[in-house]
Amino acid sequence: MEVAGFFLALAAILTAAKLLGEIAERMGQPAVLGELVAGALLGGAGLGVVPSTGSGAELIHVMAELGVLLLLFEIGLETDLKAMFRVGPAALAVAVVGVAIPFGLGYLYWVADGHPGPAAIFVGATLTATSVGITARVLSDLGALGTPEARVIIGAAVIDDVLGLVILSVVSVLATGGAVTAFGVARTLAVAVGFLVVAVLVGRYAVPGLFNLVVRMRVRSVLLVLAVAFALGLSAAAAEAGSALILGAFAAGLILSGTNQFDTIEREVRPVAAVFTPIFFVSVGSSLDLRLLDPATPAARETLLIALVLTLIGIFGKMAAGWAAPWQPMRRLVVGVGMVPRGEVGLIFADIGRRSGILNDEVFGAVLLMIMATTFVAPPALKSLLRPRPGGAA
Amino acid sequence: MEVAGFFLALAAILTAAKLLGEIAERMGQPAVLGELVAGALLGGAGLGVVPSTGSGAELIHVMAELGVLLLLFEIGLETDLKAMFRVGPAALAVAVVGVAIPFGLGYLYWVADGHPGPAAIFVGATLTATSVGITARVLSDLGALGTPEARVIIGAAVIDDVLGLVILSVVSVLATGGAVTAFGVARTLAVAVGFLVVAVLVGRYAVPGLFNLVVRMRVRSVLLVLAVAFALGLSAAAAEAGSALILGAFAAGLILSGTNQFDTIEREVRPVAAVFTPIFFVSVGSSLDLRLLDPATPAARETLLIALVLTLIGIFGKMAAGWAAPWQPMRRLVVGVGMVPRGEVGLIFADIGRRSGILNDEVFGAVLLMIMATTFVAPPALKSLLRPRPGGAA
Repeated sequence: MEVAGFFLALAAILTAAKLLGEIAERMGQPAVLGELVAGALLGGAGLGVVPSTGSGAELIHVMAELGVLLLLFEIGLETDLKAMFRVGPAALAVAVVGVAIPFGLGYLYWVADGHPGPAAIFVGATLTATSVGITARVLSDLGALGTPEARVIIGAAVIDDVLGLVILSVVSVLATGGAVTAFGVARTLAVAVGFLVVAVLVGRYAVPGLFNLVVRMRVRSVLLVLAVAFALGLSAAAAEAGSALILGAFAAGLILSGTNQFDTIEREVRPVAAVFTPIFFVSVGSSLDLRLLDPATPAARETLLIALVLTLIGIFGKMAAGWAAPWQPMRRLVVGVGMVPRGEVGLIFADIGRRSGILNDEVFGAVLLMIMATTFVAPPALKSLLRPRPGGAA
Repeated sequence: MEVAGFFLALAAILTAAKLLGEIAERMGQPAVLGELVAGALLGGAGLGVVPSTGSGAELIHVMAELGVLLLLFEIGLETDLKAMFRVGPAALAVAVVGVAIPFGLGYLYWVADGHPGPAAIFVGATLTATSVGITARVLSDLGALGTPEARVIIGAAVIDDVLGLVILSVVSVLATGGAVTAFGVARTLAVAVGFLVVAVLVGRYAVPGLFNLVVRMRVRSVLLVLAVAFALGLSAAAAEAGSALILGAFAAGLILSGTNQFDTIEREVRPVAAVFTPIFFVSVGSSLDLRLLDPATPAARETLLIALVLTLIGIFGKMAAGWAAPWQPMRRLVVGVGMVPRGEVGLIFADIGRRSGILNDEVFGAVLLMIMATTFVAPPALKSLLRPRPGGAA
């Protein structure tokens, strides 16, 4: 009977995602915005449809992870690796500046507010990581994934996640009361970069031949199922190596984009991803507490004030990153705005900070509002920026 | 990190399913046989890759349920309801005879062996329900879903499940030490039949108009995602009404097969189902204990002997059902053999019997072997029967 309740929740999540996605599109906004609002409405602070505790929450979490994994896999499949390499140095510069400025400003703001030490580092850390999932979905909704700006943004957002993982390991050590070592930081960075480089180099060499054998198998849907199994396996490998699941899924997509069967794989992965990715966005939306938006209470007013400052830092810091690669011909404002949305990684930081007691409820709420605001502000801005010059050569 | 471990298990399940499915096909057997063997090899008694305890087992269970749900949804979509109605009386006769004879023979065998009362009813009950999932997959693998025999088999197997639910409610009462009432039996039957009839009648009337509105929505993949949400919702409704999930999924498919968009829905559901249905078959296979096959131990020899008798009853009882509808022009042997595979429902019965202590380990093992043998014996037999006259007008 518990399975039935879970399937009912899934049905509600998918239906609300599409209905509010439709409303968002009719209002001229990207669909993903509607899915986040659907999550806020269905979450624990709203209708309580999205399970937030117990085994139901764990199931939703796994389904959401599967959704973001399939999304990154699809993005990897659609990524032109050669074009990505051409924008590589620009993406790296955008990522580094886009992590350094928000981190530094957030840290200084919280020290100036009278909270030096771990709390300030945590506040800075929550401001660093761009959400690849949300950014990529917005660009994909706008049909702009093939533009040079999109390549820089996606590339920078992926590098961003690698830097985010380094910061995550640092804040995790802080949260358990330990000291941060240069060796630990270097090792986390090396694992993430090493995994991506080794996986893509080895994979691009070995996997196309393997899939030339797979395509000769007779059993039904073998190409799709083994491609999904490959993405799942490489994601797990990335996590086991101490890096992030989504890094493995993205690498799997990049690798399979070099096979002769990539168009079939891409066409068949798309419906599978279409069913699961909304679960991720609704799940992200559902962790936002709507009561924090009520300015009638003093605690909420303080939270809103902190949130306002953090949001300004979050928006300004990432937009500045658009000008980090002066040699690259691109629309710098588009890149800067594209880097603004925070999401899953920021939420993970905030959650660790709250659980370890380093962040109190007001700051935690403010961080959530900042993540929500940056996520909500970027899609319409990007859309209006891209409308005069939509799409581009793929 | 637990999510990573689960994704790795999923990757192994999907890969093993396709590799052993391919081997089965190359040996002239249906792919589903290979998937069951893959499950037995990956299960707790084999490599232990399929998690059998804790939250991992629950996750696999939900994914497997999602797989069988999508499979029955797809079968419902592909079912020609009018053609099904034409074979309705024949399917009903085949189902009733195919439940009555195995139940009666199993009950008498176990009473004759010196075990009257609940144990004999349990042994009889485990012999009753044909596995719609396995049967439909075999017919689909053989490209024979459009034949009149396939319609009778699928129809009878669905009715079978309804009868199985009635028997399940009866044995559940027995397992808790209660008395079985005629009212309880009648109510369970009425709920299952009522749900299917009401859902399909109301759905066929109201849903096509609704999907004519859905198709005018602009948001991506809206048709697929809302169709899947509908199947999830109706499955949950069937379970909440006291019936089976798969009954709701099948009804959802039947209903959507009457929409103007059913070809798009069917085409996009297929890849999603292709990824999840192997999880169900591997999961069924993984609950079979390979050690029960070792005739070196006396306990295993006794188990094997009981299993042999139960298997003969299981095969003969269902094959006799092929002759239950003398008015219907059809190949009776094909229908009889098509009804032989047992699966999920028999496993549920056996599990309840073992947990309540009514069935001891030897009988439980014998029941599992019977389910395995009937499942393994039917596909090659069906395949050789259908080979001379493959396919048919849809």
